Amino acid sequence: MFFASDNSGPVPPQVIDALSRANAGHVSGYGADALSLSVADRLRDLFEAPQAAVYLVPTGTAANVLALALLCPPYGTVFASPVAHIHEDECNAPEFFTGGAKLTLVPGSDRMTPDALRAAIEGEQNRGVHGPKRGPVSITQVTERGNVYSMNELHALTAVAQEYGLPVHLDGARFANAAVKLGVSPAQMSWKAGVDICVFGGTKNGLMGVEAVLIFDPARAEEFEYRRKRGAILFSKHRYLAAQMDAYLTRDLWKDLAHQANARCDQIIQGMKGLGVSVLNDTHANMVFFDAARSVHRALHDAGVAYNIWGALDGDPQQQIMGRLVCDWSLEPAQVSAFLDHLDKAV
Amino acid sequence: MFFASDNSGPVPPQVIDALSRANAGHVSGYGADALSLSVADRLRDLFEAPQAAVYLVPTGTAANVLALALLCPPYGTVFASPVAHIHEDECNAPEFFTGGAKLTLVPGSDRMTPDALRAAIEGEQNRGVHGPKRGPVSITQVTERGNVYSMNELHALTAVAQEYGLPVHLDGARFANAAVKLGVSPAQMSWKAGVDICVFGGTKNGLMGVEAVLIFDPARAEEFEYRRKRGAILFSKHRYLAAQMDAYLTRDLWKDLAHQANARCDQIIQGMKGLGVSVLNDTHANMVFFDAARSVHRALHDAGVAYNIWGALDGDPQQQIMGRLVCDWSLEPAQVSAFLDHLDKAV
Amino acid sequence: MFFASDNSGPVPPQVIDALSRANAGHVSGYGADALSLSVADRLRDLFEAPQAAVYLVPTGTAANVLALALLCPPYGTVFASPVAHIHEDECNAPEFFTGGAKLTLVPGSDRMTPDALRAAIEGEQNRGVHGPKRGPVSITQVTERGNVYSMNELHALTAVAQEYGLPVHLDGARFANAAVKLGVSPAQMSWKAGVDICVFGGTKNGLMGVEAVLIFDPARAEEFEYRRKRGAILFSKHRYLAAQMDAYLTRDLWKDLAHQANARCDQIIQGMKGLGVSVLNDTHANMVFFDAARSVHRALHDAGVAYNIWGALDGDPQQQIMGRLVCDWSLEPAQVSAFLDHLDKAV
Amino acid sequence: MFFASDNSGPVPPQVIDALSRANAGHVSGYGADALSLSVADRLRDLFEAPQAAVYLVPTGTAANVLALALLCPPYGTVFASPVAHIHEDECNAPEFFTGGAKLTLVPGSDRMTPDALRAAIEGEQNRGVHGPKRGPVSITQVTERGNVYSMNELHALTAVAQEYGLPVHLDGARFANAAVKLGVSPAQMSWKAGVDICVFGGTKNGLMGVEAVLIFDPARAEEFEYRRKRGAILFSKHRYLAAQMDAYLTRDLWKDLAHQANARCDQIIQGMKGLGVSVLNDTHANMVFFDAARSVHRALHDAGVAYNIWGALDGDPQQQIMGRLVCDWSLEPAQVSAFLDHLDKAV
Repeated sequence: MFFASDNSGPVPPQVIDALSRANAGHVSGYGADALSLSVADRLRDLFEAPQAAVYLVPTGTAANVLALALLCPPYGTVFASPVAHIHEDECNAPEFFTGGAKLTLVPGSDRMTPDALRAAIEGEQNRGVHGPKRGPVSITQVTERGNVYSMNELHALTAVAQEYGLPVHLDGARFANAAVKLGVSPAQMSWKAGVDICVFGGTKNGLMGVEAVLIFDPARAEEFEYRRKRGAILFSKHRYLAAQMDAYLTRDLWKDLAHQANARCDQIIQGMKGLGVSVLNDTHANMVFFDAARSVHRALHDAGVAYNIWGALDGDPQQQIMGRLVCDWSLEPAQVSAFLDHLDKAV
Repeated sequence: MFFASDNSGPVPPQVIDALSRANAGHVSGYGADALSLSVADRLRDLFEAPQAAVYLVPTGTAANVLALALLCPPYGTVFASPVAHIHEDECNAPEFFTGGAKLTLVPGSDRMTPDALRAAIEGEQNRGVHGPKRGPVSITQVTERGNVYSMNELHALTAVAQEYGLPVHLDGARFANAAVKLGVSPAQMSWKAGVDICVFGGTKNGLMGVEAVLIFDPARAEEFEYRRKRGAILFSKHRYLAAQMDAYLTRDLWKDLAHQANARCDQIIQGMKGLGVSVLNDTHANMVFFDAARSVHRALHDAGVAYNIWGALDGDPQQQIMGRLVCDWSLEPAQVSAFLDHLDKAV
Repeated sequence: MFFASDNSGPVPPQVIDALSRANAGHVSGYGADALSLSVADRLRDLFEAPQAAVYLVPTGTAANVLALALLCPPYGTVFASPVAHIHEDECNAPEFFTGGAKLTLVPGSDRMTPDALRAAIEGEQNRGVHGPKRGPVSITQVTERGNVYSMNELHALTAVAQEYGLPVHLDGARFANAAVKLGVSPAQMSWKAGVDICVFGGTKNGLMGVEAVLIFDPARAEEFEYRRKRGAILFSKHRYLAAQMDAYLTRDLWKDLAHQANARCDQIIQGMKGLGVSVLNDTHANMVFFDAARSVHRALHDAGVAYNIWGALDGDPQQQIMGRLVCDWSLEPAQVSAFLDHLDKAV
Repeated sequence: MFFASDNSGPVPPQVIDALSRANAGHVSGYGADALSLSVADRLRDLFEAPQAAVYLVPTGTAANVLALALLCPPYGTVFASPVAHIHEDECNAPEFFTGGAKLTLVPGSDRMTPDALRAAIEGEQNRGVHGPKRGPVSITQVTERGNVYSMNELHALTAVAQEYGLPVHLDGARFANAAVKLGVSPAQMSWKAGVDICVFGGTKNGLMGVEAVLIFDPARAEEFEYRRKRGAILFSKHRYLAAQMDAYLTRDLWKDLAHQANARCDQIIQGMKGLGVSVLNDTHANMVFFDAARSVHRALHDAGVAYNIWGALDGDPQQQIMGRLVCDWSLEPAQVSAFLDHLDKAV
C-alpha cells in the first residue's frame, strides 16, 4: 500500500505504447520533429490558446523555475504560500534560475487568501531599491496541503495580482486533479482566470517525466527557449517527451488518470469520516492530510502502509501527528479498502 | 539517409523493453529505488571505482555543467578547446551553473595539445585577482571534430593539469565510441588517465536521454546532489532513467551500439578514400568531417541526405565547404552504401 | 534636527585630515600600499587576531554579502532575523553574491532567541536535497530595532550554531555602538564569542564609506579576494579607504564617536521616560524605537524633525505608530534638547 | 618615477577641498541630497543629454558591469576586444553581474576593426539557442593598449552594432584623455556616436574613486537602480561621491587633468623617438607601450622607475619585451625628463 507520493506508481500502458510507436526512424532533434510540433498544437487546442508558446520539460521544478525566471527579475520577489513547492521542495532552484530573486511568503498556511496576498504585496512597497521589486504571484493548484482553490478563490487571487500589475504563475503539477475536481476546462483554470504562465503537469499524473509550460504571451517565447537550453533542460531526443504528452492528451487520458486518483482519495475520505479520523484539508483532489495519534501511524507503518508523516514514529504514542496520503492513478479500490481496514484496527 | 546527428535515430528495443519491465508497482522516488541503486553499483563495477559517486542525468549538457560546477569556483576559468561543446553548444550553461565562471579557450582547433594547454594555463597566471583563478581542464573524447585522443595524448593532457594542480573533466558524450575505438576500458579512459569527473554518455549512443556522471572523489557527492536538485534536473521517477542505463550496461549493449556506429563511419571513410574525397579528421569514431565543393553538398542535399555543413548551400559551386556526417547505431550498411553512391555521382 | 539615519551626518575632521595626509605621492594600488598594509595590522591588533584576514570595503552591504558568500553555498540557507538588514535592506544582494542561497527567517521579531534559532535550524533538516542545506547564522549587533545582545545572549546564539556545525556571521554595521554600550573589546564581541566573520562598521559611525571585514580563519582569504574583485568592490586607490580606517583607529576615535552617539540616545530615552513616551527597545545603543500617536509624529514632522515612521502621516490622529530615531556622532546635546521640547509640546 | 598606473597618483587639491565643503550638516542618503542631484544635472548638461539617467559608482568595474547587465541577458554574449578590461581585468565580474553571459572576443589585438567585429557577430548567428544570443558591443576608449579610436573609427564600429540591432557600451575609464586628445565633446564621443551607455571615468583621472554612468535611454533607469543596490555598490553617504565629481566638472577640471597627463605622454613619445625606442601604439593619450631589450627594462627598474612589463626581468638580456608607461595628471615634466635620462643611459 503505497501512498507516499504520486511519483511512485507506474505509468499507464498507453505511455509505453506511445514511446514504442515514436521509436522509429530518424527525426530532427530538439523539438523540431513532427510529433513534437503536433503535440504543441494539441496543447494549444486544449487550452484554447492558439497563440500560446508551449514547451515540454522533464521535471516540475524545471517548469516552475523557468516560468519564474521569465516573470521575475533577479532583483524581484515572488509571492508564494509558505508551503509552496517552489519554497519548500526545490532547493533554491527558483533563486538559481531567476538569478537571485527572493520569495516573499504570504502569511497563513497553504492556501493564500486575497487579503493576505495584498498585505504581503503592500509589505514590499515601502523600501524602494532597498527591498526587492515586486514580482509575480505564484499559485499552486492543487495546493501542497491537498486543497483545491475554487474558481472564485482563484479569480480573487489573480485580481489582486492584476491590481498591482503583477503577473501570475500557476504551479499545476496536479493541474489535472484540480480541473477534474472542479469540472472546469484548462482554459478556465488558466488564462481565463488571469494566469500568465501555466504549468500543466504530467509526471504526477501518470507520465514518466513530462510537464508542459504554457506561456500565453508568445512574446516571451524566445527568452524561454534560451533559458531552457541554458538550464540544461532541452532534450535532444525530444520525441520521447512528446510521445508521452501525446498519449496523455489522446482520448482525454489525462482526465481519466486524474479521475481515478481523485476517486481513490474520495474513498479514503469517506472511510476516514466513518472512522472519525480528522481530515485536515476541507477540499481535496488526490491527497488526504489527516491528524492521528502517533500510535495509529505506528500501527499503519508496521502494517506496511507507506506515506509521509510530519514528525517521528518514536515518541509519545498519544501525540497527534499529521500524515499525508497521496493517491496516484494506479491505486486499486481494493488497496484503499485494505488500508482502511488497517486504519480501522489502528484507531 | 540521416547523418545529421547521433541524437536523431531510434533507441534499440532493449531500451523499450527495460522501460516496460521497470514499469511495475510502486517504488521510491528520486533514485532511492532498487533499480537505481543497482545501476549505480553496476556503473561503479564497470569503471572499477567502488568508491565513486555515480549519478544519472537526462542531458549531456546537464552532466557537463554540473561537473564543472563542482570543479570550478565562480571566479575561476575552465580550459577548453575553442570548439568544445561546453563553449559552442550549451548556451552559457557552464557560466550559469558555475555561477559565472569563464572559459579560457586553448588556442588551436579541436584537439588540445599539451603545449597549447600549458600556454593557456600560464596565460592566466599573472594577473592575480584581476583575472580569474585557474580552474579545471575540460577534455572532450570523442572531440567535437570527430577525433579520438590516443591514450598517450590523454595522459599528456592530464599530466599538464596535474602539474598545475588543476582537476580534469571529461566530456564523454561519445565515451563509448572512443573506448571501443581505442579498445580500452572505462577505467583506463577515465580515472586511470587522470580524470576527476567523467561523463559517460548514453543519449548519443542509443538511449532516450540518460548520461552517467562518475565522480571519483566521493567527498564531492553531497554537493552534486544539491546542485542537481537545484538545477531542476533530479528526476522523481528515477527508475525510468535507471532502466535505460540498465539496458545499456547489460551484455555490453553500450559497446555493441558504439561498434555499430563506428563501423558505419569506417565504411564511409573507406568509401570516401576511394572517391578521393578529403576527410578532415585523421582519427575517427562515429563522425566524418570532410571538405567538398558546394556543388557536391548541393547534390547530396537534393538527393535527401541530411547532414550539417559549415556554410550555406547557395553560393559559388566550386567553393570547398566542410561537412559533418554522424553515424548512429541504427544506420544500416545499405544506407551508407546508398549515401556513397550519391556521393560518387556528386563528385 | 536630523534623526533619520546615522548615514546622514558629516564625518569628523580627523577623517578629512587623514585623507589629506594620505594624498601625497605615488603608491601601489589595490591595497598593496604601506598605509593599507599598516591598517590591516592595526585591525588585527585591535581584534587580537594576528592570523585574521582583514579587508576594507566601501559599503555595509558589500561587507555582509561577501562574508555570506564565503560561508553559504548557493544551495544553502542563511538563518537570520526577519528584520535583518540582509533580508530587508539589501535588495537581494545576499542572494546575488551567494549565487542564489535562501534566507530562513527565524520566527520572532528583531532579536533572535536560541530556542527560535534552534527551531528554525531543525525546520530545515528533514527534506534532504529538496530543501536548502543549512548554512550560516547571521547575527546583527546592534539589531535593526535598536537592541544590543548581551554577551550571554550572543554566546547562547553562537552555541546553537556550533551545536549544528554552522558558521556565524556578525553584521556589525553598528559594532562600535554595541561594544561601547557593553564595555567589551572587539575580540570579546567577535571571535571569542564564536563569530567566524565579523563586519566592523565605520560608515554609520563617522566614516565616509568604509567597513572592515575580519575573517578569523585565514584559509578563506584567497576566496574573499577573488570575490571582492569579481564583486566590483576592490578599490584601486585603496589608500583612501585605508586613511579613513586609520583615523578611525587612532586614539580610539571609533569609541569616542560611538560614545557620543550613544550618549545622545540616552538623553532621548531619559527625556521620553519623563514625558511618558513608550520606548520599544529595552536595550539600546544609538537608536530609539518608540510608539506615539500619529498626531505626535505629525507635530514633530511639522516642526522639522526628520526621522522614520512605520506608516503614513495621514490618517487617524490617535493611532499609535512606531517611529525610529537614530543618533549619529555629530548630534549636539542642544539638538536633542530641542527635539525633546518639540516632543513635549506634541504629546 | 611612477608610471605603473594612473591609479597611483594623488588627487588634486580641488577634490580634497570639495570633500571638506560637502562635509557639513545632515543630508539625505543614497543620492537624494542636493549636491548629488545637482551633480547629476551637471553631467546631463555636459553630455547634452537632458533625459539621460545618470549615476555615480565607486569603481570602473562596477560602472562597466552594471552597464553590461542592463544590455546583455544572461543567455547573451558581449562582443569585446581580446584585451578589453572587462575580459582581462575584472575577474569574471561581467559574467557575475549579467548572470552568466559570455564574452565573444573579436579577433585581432587591442583595437577592434569593423570587419572583425562583423565577423565575430556573424560567427554567433548560426547555432540558434545552442549558442548565446548576440548582445552588446563593448568599446574601450582609450583602449587598453593605449590607442585612441578616431571619431571615424568609433562611428564605423557603432554602425556595425546598429546594423545588427545591438546596443553599444563604452568603457570610458580614460574618457577624458580620449576626448581631450580628439578635441571632441562628451556628447560627440558618446550618444552622438551611437553609444547607449557610457562610462565617464574619474578615478584614473584624479578622483579617489568615482565613475559616472550615463544611460541615454532613461527607461533603463529603474533597472540600474535596483541592480546597483543589489550589487552592494549604492553609497549611503552619497554626497562624498558627488563632491568629487562636482570638483571634476568645475571649471573643466576633468579636461585640465587629462591635458596634463596627455602632455607628459607626448613628452615621453618625443623623447623615445629621439632615442630610437620603438613605440607600439600609433595613437596615444596618456599611455606609452614600447618594446625594449630586457637589459633596458632591467636598467630602468634598477634606477627606480616603476612600470609594467610583459614578462620577467630575468632572462636573455637581448630579448625584446613590451613595457607600459602610464602618465597620471600629477606627473611633473621634470620627472619625465629624469626618466628619459635613465632611458637614454639604458639604451
